[in-house]
Amino acid sequence: MTTNSSGDDAYARAGVNIDAGNLAVQKYRDVTSGWTHPDQLGSLGNFSGLFRLPGDATRALVGSADGVGTKILIAAAVKRYDTVGADLVNHCVNDILVTGAEPLFFLDYLAVGKLDPHVASLIVAGVHRACRENHCALLGGETAEMPGVYRPDHFDLAGTIVGMVELAAIPDPNRVQPGDAIVGLPAVGLHTNGYTLARALIPEDEYGAPFGMGTFADALLAPHPSYLQQVRAMRAVADVKSMAHITGGGLLENVPRTLPDHAAAVFEQTRWDVPPIMAELVRRGNLQHEECYRTLNMGVGYTLVIPITDVDAALAAAPGARVIGFVQPRRDGEPRVVVHPARTA
Amino acid sequence: MTTNSSGDDAYARAGVNIDAGNLAVQKYRDVTSGWTHPDQLGSLGNFSGLFRLPGDATRALVGSADGVGTKILIAAAVKRYDTVGADLVNHCVNDILVTGAEPLFFLDYLAVGKLDPHVASLIVAGVHRACRENHCALLGGETAEMPGVYRPDHFDLAGTIVGMVELAAIPDPNRVQPGDAIVGLPAVGLHTNGYTLARALIPEDEYGAPFGMGTFADALLAPHPSYLQQVRAMRAVADVKSMAHITGGGLLENVPRTLPDHAAAVFEQTRWDVPPIMAELVRRGNLQHEECYRTLNMGVGYTLVIPITDVDAALAAAPGARVIGFVQPRRDGEPRVVVHPARTA
Repeated sequence: MTTNSSGDDAYARAGVNIDAGNLAVQKYRDVTSGWTHPDQLGSLGNFSGLFRLPGDATRALVGSADGVGTKILIAAAVKRYDTVGADLVNHCVNDILVTGAEPLFFLDYLAVGKLDPHVASLIVAGVHRACRENHCALLGGETAEMPGVYRPDHFDLAGTIVGMVELAAIPDPNRVQPGDAIVGLPAVGLHTNGYTLARALIPEDEYGAPFGMGTFADALLAPHPSYLQQVRAMRAVADVKSMAHITGGGLLENVPRTLPDHAAAVFEQTRWDVPPIMAELVRRGNLQHEECYRTLNMGVGYTLVIPITDVDAALAAAPGARVIGFVQPRRDGEPRVVVHPARTA
Repeated sequence: MTTNSSGDDAYARAGVNIDAGNLAVQKYRDVTSGWTHPDQLGSLGNFSGLFRLPGDATRALVGSADGVGTKILIAAAVKRYDTVGADLVNHCVNDILVTGAEPLFFLDYLAVGKLDPHVASLIVAGVHRACRENHCALLGGETAEMPGVYRPDHFDLAGTIVGMVELAAIPDPNRVQPGDAIVGLPAVGLHTNGYTLARALIPEDEYGAPFGMGTFADALLAPHPSYLQQVRAMRAVADVKSMAHITGGGLLENVPRTLPDHAAAVFEQTRWDVPPIMAELVRRGNLQHEECYRTLNMGVGYTLVIPITDVDAALAAAPGARVIGFVQPRRDGEPRVVVHPARTA
């Protein structure tokens, strides 16, 4: 059970409250603690939930639910409806990928203030296209017309993915050791996190203005990529010990879930590029180092912990992958994640 | 792929457009027709989607996504947050139940304008309670704080259920024959359909007014029941040939999906009770016969087609079940469903 309100001071100023999010997760644990289904594996608060496949000792089903978040408000503002489906599906694919699962099927939930069949079909076509690219069935979905909840020109898009994993193939963070490399896969932009902040810093009347090779809208709506092919290729040639999908909470909150207590991740930001749209947000918001790495992915979409001996093979298997940090010993009270900035503040 | 905008003239007057809904479903078929996953069984437009379980010749996974709809606006107005979870989960349980599936796990999506951890935990507690009652794991979920999409006091709640079915246990509407009985399970109220109409006919300032044994809010928020136990009990003793969950579209649109082309369902409304809240809506809206049975469940929550020889055993197994109609021969051009009113109009 996750909340999408991770962030910090800058995020809170933009209207998203991280303390409320953490408190909600704590309360969810309380209200659900009285009963857990006996076939449920793992706990709330991870990227995905695992469920023992009935009558099968070797496999588990993996499920994850997510939404596109307020990125949809930018899509609605510029009437670009064909990319949010990829945001949603690829986010979900990556969330179950960290367990080692391959996608089976997906279901979407589209809620609108006023149903425009053409717009709705553009959105669903994008969902279907992304499902196909991930060889994942679009098994069904629900479109709800809800006047009074959504503005006529607004919508919300959420979905659930189900995948399957061999129990023996589930990565185990406890195998991670100091000296292991952390390989990163590049982010193309904000993906699906940080948009409430981005919308506060880039007003709607600038969406059409030139930025980089296109407009601000182009940069802000760059679709969340699927890392399925790259991760599959690396796992075929390297011992991948644990993985993280860098979503809300950034490197600082997502990477610790992939490490044992006695290990810390130390990243060197000189080793990768921060996308221009992210640098622009940092500049406009005067975001401090910690704020950046807790609110935004800062250019890293996915991380894999790999023993140093397997790194060359892994990098050769996945174009774009690079070593961005290392696992180091950690003592009690020390930070779980350190990001060395490219330049001093 | 279903849309929740089923209804008719009265519904359209209330702001939900059935033509747009049907057109959207048609367009979804068009945009998704280019590719279907090879393990996907059945087609879009049914209650649930079926997916062949990899490496297992005898079983399928069944998935269904749904939302609570504008019933949440009534819950938000009277600040009653503990029942919408049951609405959502039980709706989903019933949707996959028509395929014969038993639930495995559920994931929820909660979107809010401003995250109040207490309110969110009441909602999630209701989801968890309903999951437990259906012996269904609450495998995960997402809570999204989306200022600008939702009003601070508004929320939306949707979810996805996954179940499993033996392929041999999937009901087959083609086995239905004239002379079979149609057994109905009683609805306790509107369940999760017709709320945009209900909200147009019963203004918010009346929610606290006395109605029946309680208030209008009590009647309007009566939780959608799960029919899992009753259906399981009937299937254990009777040959259940096909089943329908009576949701948006009412008896007129949901029952045809459970019949072969040469058969019609003929219901006698003297055989069941219309809940008082439904009668009140009919009176206030001056709803015509066809409008009622296409927009509201009119007191029937679930239907099962059972050979006449098995009816006594089925009724004995499920308290509340009763015979509400029969299957009759149908010629081309004749209606698929006829409801004989309790009294002449």
